[in-house]
Amino acid sequence: MFELLNEVKEINPLVLHYTNEVTINDCANITLAIGASPLMSYSYEEAEEIIPIASSVVINIGTMNSSHRELFVKAGKIANKHKKPVILDPVGVFATPSRSLLVKTLLNEVKFDVIKGNAAEIKYIGGFNVKGKGVDSFDDDENIDDIIKKVAKKLECVVVATGKVDVVTDGDKIIKIHNGTPKLKGITGTGCMSASLIGSYLGASNEILNSAAMGVLTMSLCGELSDIDNIGIGSFKVNLMDNIYKLNEDKLKESSRVEVF
Amino acid sequence: MFELLNEVKEINPLVLHYTNEVTINDCANITLAIGASPLMSYSYEEAEEIIPIASSVVINIGTMNSSHRELFVKAGKIANKHKKPVILDPVGVFATPSRSLLVKTLLNEVKFDVIKGNAAEIKYIGGFNVKGKGVDSFDDDENIDDIIKKVAKKLECVVVATGKVDVVTDGDKIIKIHNGTPKLKGITGTGCMSASLIGSYLGASNEILNSAAMGVLTMSLCGELSDIDNIGIGSFKVNLMDNIYKLNEDKLKESSRVEVF
Amino acid sequence: MFELLNEVKEINPLVLHYTNEVTINDCANITLAIGASPLMSYSYEEAEEIIPIASSVVINIGTMNSSHRELFVKAGKIANKHKKPVILDPVGVFATPSRSLLVKTLLNEVKFDVIKGNAAEIKYIGGFNVKGKGVDSFDDDENIDDIIKKVAKKLECVVVATGKVDVVTDGDKIIKIHNGTPKLKGITGTGCMSASLIGSYLGASNEILNSAAMGVLTMSLCGELSDIDNIGIGSFKVNLMDNIYKLNEDKLKESSRVEVF
Repeated sequence: MFELLNEVKEINPLVLHYTNEVTINDCANITLAIGASPLMSYSYEEAEEIIPIASSVVINIGTMNSSHRELFVKAGKIANKHKKPVILDPVGVFATPSRSLLVKTLLNEVKFDVIKGNAAEIKYIGGFNVKGKGVDSFDDDENIDDIIKKVAKKLECVVVATGKVDVVTDGDKIIKIHNGTPKLKGITGTGCMSASLIGSYLGASNEILNSAAMGVLTMSLCGELSDIDNIGIGSFKVNLMDNIYKLNEDKLKESSRVEVF
Repeated sequence: MFELLNEVKEINPLVLHYTNEVTINDCANITLAIGASPLMSYSYEEAEEIIPIASSVVINIGTMNSSHRELFVKAGKIANKHKKPVILDPVGVFATPSRSLLVKTLLNEVKFDVIKGNAAEIKYIGGFNVKGKGVDSFDDDENIDDIIKKVAKKLECVVVATGKVDVVTDGDKIIKIHNGTPKLKGITGTGCMSASLIGSYLGASNEILNSAAMGVLTMSLCGELSDIDNIGIGSFKVNLMDNIYKLNEDKLKESSRVEVF
Repeated sequence: MFELLNEVKEINPLVLHYTNEVTINDCANITLAIGASPLMSYSYEEAEEIIPIASSVVINIGTMNSSHRELFVKAGKIANKHKKPVILDPVGVFATPSRSLLVKTLLNEVKFDVIKGNAAEIKYIGGFNVKGKGVDSFDDDENIDDIIKKVAKKLECVVVATGKVDVVTDGDKIIKIHNGTPKLKGITGTGCMSASLIGSYLGASNEILNSAAMGVLTMSLCGELSDIDNIGIGSFKVNLMDNIYKLNEDKLKESSRVEVF
């Protein structure tokens, strides 16, 4: 799947973001760094016009801006209509009932190709009663791999659960990524940027599972490569952008620690 | 008061921001750098849900976004109801009547624990007729320490006036911070980030005066440490994040220049 | 025209931005780096209050935020009323009908001093039917210099067309800037930041053509100076800020490659 990196750089897909105001600049820069083109819109008026020219659409609910809630749902539905791949980043879905409700609405109104969250977020989402598919509860001792596979099957999409080990699955096959560094949680937006990377790969390829895996692998591996010499988080962020910009297939082959089941 | 730094790192308080779109990313990253967790929301719907789980609330009126004015007042009132510490950063309060009016409304509707501004902003706020406490005017030759003390007494909160020397007071005791560098005015958001740092300390401690002092001391000291070798402002900002991330009690003891009266 | 740099640093003009949420922080920092003061507002209420105290006004439609469309038109009109120089950055004007319409409305309602876009955007705008000045179409083999001059004459303002060579014209005189690097397209916001730089020069000087040229020259030259040693884009952005901060008249004289016709 490492060859997808060159496809991004050749195809230069347009990754349209409906995202939060905190990490919007970082998402644009990481999309450029990997070789795709970012576009950000907060416009109800142009949603129907701009989504048809996008290669993929990323929806991220980070700040829950009251002015954008309906826009995000609308954008997802239009993306579906035009068969554009859509990625959901359900930031903090279990933090408030408002977030849960918005994510539930999104899941019921929009067919997502990839949903990316941390393991707790994915587990929480799996418990939703969506599209008439009942409420699930998971046992505490249930294996996280099994849970994530169940969620992927239920929501009929690829699911990415980030963590110490990132787990990616289409409900059947599982890809595990063992690269990473705790520093990635030391700066804001690495989760949001992972979704931008997934959107970049998905905008250049039809391989949904591999695109999702490449997105998180790119972030986890480049984070690992950037965490050198007791570095501070200001320098770490600069390094991260540099390493993603300089990533190539050779480095992927050399340093990736990926398992496929 | 230097021990408060470790309390932040141990407690990892959740600092909820209602802030401007210019420096929102920097505020999130500085909150992470000091060891707290940032959360940003522009949602009317989740205000009542999310404030109860926050450790402290920062309100910053920087861009005066018409869509957020009422949200910021609402958030302050909910924070009061749930006894969460609230910090106000009245950016540019005297620049326009709209800013003055919003700040006056905030002061009348919300009980703040800390108000942080530059000396001119604090002096201006002190002249407001708030909560029936008349209009004050200050003599030009009146000592700035005395003015800030008066403002703190009138508004019944801790007041931070930043400048060449930062002055922090609860109306009685005064803490003066002599660290700093003019470079801190050479990048945007160092004022906003100071409020985030105050919010981080205040989310981990009940000592309001010391938390406010630690917030501005952290910024002023780390700014000073970052201003090396005729540095440009791009590198200065990276250094600033690194130094805040690496700050510890020993460095505070070694390099702080603080007076207490 | 290089002496304008010192005028910015002496006068420290206030550059008011009505801009997108993606690059708003970078625009603020670049404005500080060149020696001006940034101010960002998303407030309908304070537009009439704050524009009179601004030195120049930058309008950038980047995210097409539905909440800000009318504000941006309003701000342009108020700027005209108070004879403040206004700069338009019509980001992606031909990407969607909504963008075209907003730019056309802005051109009909507001008299701009400078319009800055890439060559394609400028050409597209030149074809608008604005202020009763008919629809133009350009021949494919028509010289880009001639097209940009025509657009400047039609819109009665200085026009900046960025590209491998930046072209600046008032419809009569042409200034060409040969500095630059492809890396400037590798990070988001260098176009937006160029508009902030033009606003900074224009806030300090009445020479519209030279101010516009200095704005793009500053970006293109400092970009060129920052592109060293197979640099990644994270470090490139830091360098760019450093080089703009450190730019002086000697460096301008030494390294600028400017033609005037």
